[in-house]
Amino acid sequence: MPRVVVDVMPKPEILDPQGKAVHGALPRLGFTGVSDVRQGKRFELEVEGPVTDEVLAEVARMAETLLSNPVIENYTVRIEESVEVQA
Amino acid sequence: MPRVVVDVMPKPEILDPQGKAVHGALPRLGFTGVSDVRQGKRFELEVEGPVTDEVLAEVARMAETLLSNPVIENYTVRIEESVEVQA
Repeated sequence: MPRVVVDVMPKPEILDPQGKAVHGALPRLGFTGVSDVRQGKRFELEVEGPVTDEVLAEVARMAETLLSNPVIENYTVRIEESVEVQA
Repeated sequence: MPRVVVDVMPKPEILDPQGKAVHGALPRLGFTGVSDVRQGKRFELEVEGPVTDEVLAEVARMAETLLSNPVIENYTVRIEESVEVQA
């Protein structure tokens, strides 16, 4: 079944306390070399039928009204390609 | 600066109440044609220096110990390509 992915991230100018907490925890766990972390949300939508431009536009409306807060978050909509699963 | 993305999603056999809530809200907002929704997390890590295989392996260890709960979540690690921003 086709899958559409919506990524929702805090806008660059918005503070991201979750990302900051992760960034602060990394050196305490012995991890180095990461200069910044941002945390957002990922939605995977299973769509009935083929993923047309109309479907992607409809998903963009869902992202704008339900999945994200456009005041503080950006979103991207894309069709999922093959993903290298690592775990 | 190179960016590494870690996507963390609930395992397929694990209930996903957040995704279920989103899925249930869509028809109430007039959206149809979506048969399932899963919600997970997306982390964007800014890495110092080039993204080598060692860096990706280190990020995978971060994902396993800090960013995900391996009992109930899967993660993927990848280098971010160009993204079509929609908002």
